Amino acid sequence: MNVVGKSVPRVDAFDKVTGRARFVSDLDFADQLVAKVMMSPHPHARIISIDTGQAKQVPGVKAVITARDIPGENAVPVIKNDMPLLADDAVLYYGQPVAAVAAETAQAAEEALKKITVEYEVLSAVLSVEEAISDGAPQINDEAEGNIHAYHKIRKGNVEEGFAAADVIIEQTYRTPYQEHAYLETQGMLAVPDHEGSMTVYGSMQCPFYVREGVAHVLGISLNQVRVVQCVTGGGFGGKEDVPSLVAGIPAVLAKKSNRPVKLILTREEDMIMMSKRHPGLIYYKTGATKDGKLTAIEVTYYLNGGGYSTLSPVVMWRGAVHAAGPYKCTNVKVDAKAVATNLVPCGAYRGFGTPQVLFAHETQMDVLAEKLGMSPVDIRKVNALELGDETSTGQQLKHSFGLKKTLDEALKKSSWDMKRREYEKDSGTVRRGIGLSTVFYGMGLGAGGAHMARAGAFVQVHQDATINIAVGTTEMGQGMRTVLSQIAAEEFGVDVTDVHMLPVDTSRVPDSGPTVASRSTTLSGNAIRDGCKKIKQNLARVAAEMLNCKTVDVGFNSGRVYARDLSSDGVAFAELIATASHEKVHMAAQGWAIAPYTSFDPETGQGWAYFTYASATNIAEVQVDLATCVVTVLRITAAHEMGRAINPQQVEGQIQGGTLQGMGYGLSEEILHQDGVMINPDLSTYIIPTSMDAPVIDPIIVEEPFPDGPFGAKGFGELPLMGVAPAVANAVTHAIGARSFEIPLTPERLFQLLKQSNQDTR
Amino acid sequence: MNVVGKSVPRVDAFDKVTGRARFVSDLDFADQLVAKVMMSPHPHARIISIDTGQAKQVPGVKAVITARDIPGENAVPVIKNDMPLLADDAVLYYGQPVAAVAAETAQAAEEALKKITVEYEVLSAVLSVEEAISDGAPQINDEAEGNIHAYHKIRKGNVEEGFAAADVIIEQTYRTPYQEHAYLETQGMLAVPDHEGSMTVYGSMQCPFYVREGVAHVLGISLNQVRVVQCVTGGGFGGKEDVPSLVAGIPAVLAKKSNRPVKLILTREEDMIMMSKRHPGLIYYKTGATKDGKLTAIEVTYYLNGGGYSTLSPVVMWRGAVHAAGPYKCTNVKVDAKAVATNLVPCGAYRGFGTPQVLFAHETQMDVLAEKLGMSPVDIRKVNALELGDETSTGQQLKHSFGLKKTLDEALKKSSWDMKRREYEKDSGTVRRGIGLSTVFYGMGLGAGGAHMARAGAFVQVHQDATINIAVGTTEMGQGMRTVLSQIAAEEFGVDVTDVHMLPVDTSRVPDSGPTVASRSTTLSGNAIRDGCKKIKQNLARVAAEMLNCKTVDVGFNSGRVYARDLSSDGVAFAELIATASHEKVHMAAQGWAIAPYTSFDPETGQGWAYFTYASATNIAEVQVDLATCVVTVLRITAAHEMGRAINPQQVEGQIQGGTLQGMGYGLSEEILHQDGVMINPDLSTYIIPTSMDAPVIDPIIVEEPFPDGPFGAKGFGELPLMGVAPAVANAVTHAIGARSFEIPLTPERLFQLLKQSNQDTR
Repeated sequence: MNVVGKSVPRVDAFDKVTGRARFVSDLDFADQLVAKVMMSPHPHARIISIDTGQAKQVPGVKAVITARDIPGENAVPVIKNDMPLLADDAVLYYGQPVAAVAAETAQAAEEALKKITVEYEVLSAVLSVEEAISDGAPQINDEAEGNIHAYHKIRKGNVEEGFAAADVIIEQTYRTPYQEHAYLETQGMLAVPDHEGSMTVYGSMQCPFYVREGVAHVLGISLNQVRVVQCVTGGGFGGKEDVPSLVAGIPAVLAKKSNRPVKLILTREEDMIMMSKRHPGLIYYKTGATKDGKLTAIEVTYYLNGGGYSTLSPVVMWRGAVHAAGPYKCTNVKVDAKAVATNLVPCGAYRGFGTPQVLFAHETQMDVLAEKLGMSPVDIRKVNALELGDETSTGQQLKHSFGLKKTLDEALKKSSWDMKRREYEKDSGTVRRGIGLSTVFYGMGLGAGGAHMARAGAFVQVHQDATINIAVGTTEMGQGMRTVLSQIAAEEFGVDVTDVHMLPVDTSRVPDSGPTVASRSTTLSGNAIRDGCKKIKQNLARVAAEMLNCKTVDVGFNSGRVYARDLSSDGVAFAELIATASHEKVHMAAQGWAIAPYTSFDPETGQGWAYFTYASATNIAEVQVDLATCVVTVLRITAAHEMGRAINPQQVEGQIQGGTLQGMGYGLSEEILHQDGVMINPDLSTYIIPTSMDAPVIDPIIVEEPFPDGPFGAKGFGELPLMGVAPAVANAVTHAIGARSFEIPLTPERLFQLLKQSNQDTR
Repeated sequence: MNVVGKSVPRVDAFDKVTGRARFVSDLDFADQLVAKVMMSPHPHARIISIDTGQAKQVPGVKAVITARDIPGENAVPVIKNDMPLLADDAVLYYGQPVAAVAAETAQAAEEALKKITVEYEVLSAVLSVEEAISDGAPQINDEAEGNIHAYHKIRKGNVEEGFAAADVIIEQTYRTPYQEHAYLETQGMLAVPDHEGSMTVYGSMQCPFYVREGVAHVLGISLNQVRVVQCVTGGGFGGKEDVPSLVAGIPAVLAKKSNRPVKLILTREEDMIMMSKRHPGLIYYKTGATKDGKLTAIEVTYYLNGGGYSTLSPVVMWRGAVHAAGPYKCTNVKVDAKAVATNLVPCGAYRGFGTPQVLFAHETQMDVLAEKLGMSPVDIRKVNALELGDETSTGQQLKHSFGLKKTLDEALKKSSWDMKRREYEKDSGTVRRGIGLSTVFYGMGLGAGGAHMARAGAFVQVHQDATINIAVGTTEMGQGMRTVLSQIAAEEFGVDVTDVHMLPVDTSRVPDSGPTVASRSTTLSGNAIRDGCKKIKQNLARVAAEMLNCKTVDVGFNSGRVYARDLSSDGVAFAELIATASHEKVHMAAQGWAIAPYTSFDPETGQGWAYFTYASATNIAEVQVDLATCVVTVLRITAAHEMGRAINPQQVEGQIQGGTLQGMGYGLSEEILHQDGVMINPDLSTYIIPTSMDAPVIDPIIVEEPFPDGPFGAKGFGELPLMGVAPAVANAVTHAIGARSFEIPLTPERLFQLLKQSNQDTR
């Protein structure tokens, strides 16, 4: 292959580093209005009345809206549609949008917000999972009976029998924190009234088709009347999956009302208060194993703090449940997963989607088990790691391309694990080093939970000058999709990647391609592009066969030339073929389409073919802990990943670097703080994400096990790099200090408490 | 049929009458600059030097460009590419763009224009065809040898023999004027630097793919880097065919240079001076006929005044040549057509494309012949009119759907021709009435002259809520295409036209679909939409067959339901089918494609299958002439048109009304005036177009002869209504006053001269 597998430079790099990239904040139309949103000051209250009379009088104000002004349905469509665009009779979380204003200037909009009077009856807020599920807890959300947004289970074998067969059983409660997406660019949307009653929305987002549905829904218009165009998007990480429908709905209603373009850009503070985050987890694990380390039973109860509305919680939780038993053989598994309603911000998608929580817990559990059995963390994983032919906890047999053990072997070798494990144990004094690991897997794509959306479209067009445009329905948010898909198209036509230009995502160009989540773009959009290319190549092959005087139309495209496979000729230049085909009026545009391979899941039995394939990884973390300051410094992460095939190895490494830092933040420093349900650190100076200064040495290792149904063998890769970092770091910290926390992040404060409790300052 | 053939309201009417429609002047981006163009004050001069130094110093000026600043090729690509974007070493017409400026404000741009110093060596200007083709005339344009931009001929039979066999021969010289398009909206373009070195251009235009090529050409970038989006366009009439490439190229170069959006909107004066018009014609006719009126020979020499550059003249002239013998049987035809270079504005496309000139001449010629033979104008046409099985002057046999005689019969009946012809002859006194007619035909589509561009693409998509988007590469410019094509898609799916929403034309959505000219959109884009619909219907049929439990997939779509043709069941609702198909991930988007039927033309023999089909018409004009003021008032036009099939009869009537007025203006009042090559009436107060106050009673008659290769039988219709109006009016004027002008427009001044010459004030 000429282009696939090569580290071609990112196609969007120049624009981004030179400041030319146009984000939604760089896009303004004439007569545009500024929108501002009024947020609830209470985590839980009844709305008695809203008076917008004075606000409407503020000079420059062109529209003021509350729930009553929404022309369509007052709901942000996600799964249950239980979340209103603007609060109607009650607010269920601090920061919930209550009203909105569009004005000529931001000042006028802000002044108008101050003049909206809302009479609230403040209600007591339910803030923790424990409180929400306790007997007699008030029901927060009408749709969440017993404060349970959703419930899923996994049932495999019989855990009672499994525990009976165990030589050792360990039980533990784990707590994992919120994680703020902290994308570089805050949420923003611009709604522009367009032709014949239609609405065009430009903005920062992962899922344009969700936004399209959301806008159609609140405006009460049909899908063919809404066009959504993605601007250059400065990071998403799941935080721009479902929430942009809310961010878009508000200016859309204001634009409809004022018949003018309306833009809403959230400040960092508004964004952190109002937008979704990774769900905090409360997880109970009970694990049984035989003396030789073989897992006999895994029982998990997994609670996610879902916040006031269900949004994506049902599927986030489902993915977590499927991954709760880790990448291990175990014949008896029982998982109960519940998303719980509380008076906190609705949580949603975040890279990993309910999985990092259980993987932290389970990978800790594995180390504890090894400790208890006197085994090494490596050996217990080697004994249990899934291999081809094995079954996952949902009864899915791994039939192809699963390379977990290979990643483990390569990471151990590359990190000099054995040597360092021994060496670091010799540390004494204030600064101690440790090395720890995790082995994880990750289901690719939406899985059975989103099977009806597991399709993607593409548009491919070859122009008269032999240059190519492609377009898809999934988005670039920084992950590198534009480059990878351009490579796939270039490979198909045998041309240079610089001959391919990808158009901005526009819902009016390709069919609903589902969300850009779940590491699915390379696989699904990549296959759709290949389908489009193949349709055009079929048309071109007839012309080429004529030009080459060959009998069959078995024609290959390679290195800028097109040749007949049954002739030894040099073929014809691609550009020459295209010129001829253009003149002959050959159709050189196509819509491509791809459907994900088969998946299934039975919610009753909790069994099924949950994902069409799994990627896997081993992370080995080396840390240094200062016992005086309780600060953990990560020295090195060896990250061995198997993703089917690396279409662009440099970008795979980039994903590993980014994911590693995000996983480090999750494990060590990131923590949202509340006081009586009010978020008290909605800023990036007190919510601490790792910076480049915190970055350890990162050793990326690419392991390839080509996936037969992926484009050129690729499985997808976006989320995997974050998955195993926190547990590897936590296991390394335990190795360094000899004490173990069952809660992250391992902030200095938490480490101080841990060391105090364990009552030791040496290992 | 449920939708086709119905007068559904225009889909774009509401936006237009309420002022919501967004023209390019309504579209502004942040940081946008205003462009202004410096025009040549001389019709012919050498450029010695251009100094832009002072202009660049004007505050607010961000870019000043001359020919030297063009990054790509300094040419507006049309046919010969002989016209530069900005004049380089010479200017060949008054108003030619020489330099351009982009500034923060229009004031700054204008001030900068004044500070550009151009040193010219003024040359003598060649202004008339006669002068240009005379011996020793200086060569104006290097590409036009002997001042001939292009030459075409038609040769059929032997005219010498034909004239020998004639009983009567008449010879006459005709002169036809410029015609200004006078579109409501002047030319305007907005160029926006976009992702990764690409350029997006928004504007008023007929032919987005021409603009795309033009912009790529002058910027020196590939076609996949240029995206052209048509804004709502306020009229074109041919004037926005090729010229918008010039109008777009200037802001595109300025935008590239300044890296900011740049908009150029021409004032009415600039637009009238700088933009193309209908070519003035100088036409020699020699016609022979037998005593019973049968044509024996037609010989034509047709000169078009092409102006300084060839632009579209070669094809405008070719179409004129093909139509020069009118819709009549004649075995001996000889046509020589030449586009002549002069120092005047380059002329180009205008509704009819070189044909109204010769049709005025030939329809006058027919009346003169009738007069000379003592026949009625009706009888001479009946004797000669082409019918099925007959051959045109290019040797093309009419094999299907040609309804000229039917239009003649219907128009005669409706207008009470015989009665009025006699009645009006009785008029005496100062005010005289007259009735006259013309019979014309018109080749549909680009014809053999543009066969390589005779294809069109379409995008069709059905959404989950059973609403539909369609998109094509041809444009709505007021002619009603959006409505007609929406009807075609609605008919295909058996839904209401309100369920179809057409997307704005965007070159990145469908392949190069050729220009929106030559009455080709309904036919070509209509067929492309049908092709796209059929592809989706094939996918849907499989689902429907399953839902309906029918054996075959022979499924019909009608009245919002889908039924099996081999079952008597009620079928299933379209919306239900779509919901099921969506859930089953059926591909419901497609690129459609259509190629025009076969055409051919041999430039050597001047014979061939020039157009894939012909439409035809009879116009009967009734006029009143005030002998005192010399003012002609048109009382009534009976316009019988055969266009294959009227997809929307109301719109066909609308086209007849608009075309009739435009034809009236051509025949009676519209005249561009020059003084030494300088246009002296570049405004709509001295260039007189008919207004609604001048509109006569218009009686439209629709005659349908379904065209087997058109969508639901349609041939196309945009241009035909203008074709025969001027000669019918002129023939009616002759009938009223008994004197005949061989030159139009019949302004009061010209009529006064005519009456003076004919030395009579009564018939």
